[in-house]
Amino acid sequence: MSTEAAAAFIGPDALIQHWQGHRRLTRRVIETFPEDQLFAFSLGSMRPFGALAMEMISMGAPMIRGVVTGQWDQLGSREARSRQEVLRLWDESTDHINTLWAQIPPERFRETMTAFGQYPGVVHDLILYVIDNEIHHRGQGYVYLRALGIEPPPFYER
Amino acid sequence: MSTEAAAAFIGPDALIQHWQGHRRLTRRVIETFPEDQLFAFSLGSMRPFGALAMEMISMGAPMIRGVVTGQWDQLGSREARSRQEVLRLWDESTDHINTLWAQIPPERFRETMTAFGQYPGVVHDLILYVIDNEIHHRGQGYVYLRALGIEPPPFYER
Repeated sequence: MSTEAAAAFIGPDALIQHWQGHRRLTRRVIETFPEDQLFAFSLGSMRPFGALAMEMISMGAPMIRGVVTGQWDQLGSREARSRQEVLRLWDESTDHINTLWAQIPPERFRETMTAFGQYPGVVHDLILYVIDNEIHHRGQGYVYLRALGIEPPPFYER
Repeated sequence: MSTEAAAAFIGPDALIQHWQGHRRLTRRVIETFPEDQLFAFSLGSMRPFGALAMEMISMGAPMIRGVVTGQWDQLGSREARSRQEVLRLWDESTDHINTLWAQIPPERFRETMTAFGQYPGVVHDLILYVIDNEIHHRGQGYVYLRALGIEPPPFYER
């Protein structure tokens, strides 16, 4: 491994801790939504937060599973369901992500793959896309909560 | 340097490219806001997007300057100004960030610093906080634009 290749902004252990911190915050945002608004409330014709949370679930563990195995699941259903069921799927994803993360060979992060058969990229960029997409849509959820008169959880608490 | 310390999820060069890609997208969101709404429009009593953009400007280059020099600027003014002036400050920040980034010693990312005299953390986490805060508030800006009937730039184009 050359010195250039070895230079780290952040390592795999710190990155997964960082992501799981974001995931804990997103979980709190899901919990904070009133059950009857989770798949109903929206602004500007955007998708309701429940659909966005289901998108995050359909991307997170399946992305890491693909990075480990080269097998890409179909992106899962984003249909409405109870908040309890969304949280159950969320927690299941959290466990899958942790288990799969430990199986990623360190050199894999710099390799190029085609995620879900259609998104080519360097693996670290593919993974950051999933994390950034979660932060982006969660920010949208913050506006929905505020517009509903509900205080969102603090952004800085993970 | 131990093998553990050398393991990289992503290196400094790829990370700054990733961030500057996000910054180009945020710049497009600023440009897309109507001039008369940038510091006026809000939902749910949240801050207008112009104030959020000024927050990003007050955090980005000053964070990296602090990481390089150990000197922490006062966080700058977030008051209303023209869209043109926000964009000018944005572009100035972009150049400062690129120049300063090249001066960060590689081992610095794993060190602990106290940003702005009040936020202790590992440097990679402090920097990710600035990037994540930008993505979070830009997601809020997307909702503002949609609520104004304006199509935001695509999230995946950087």
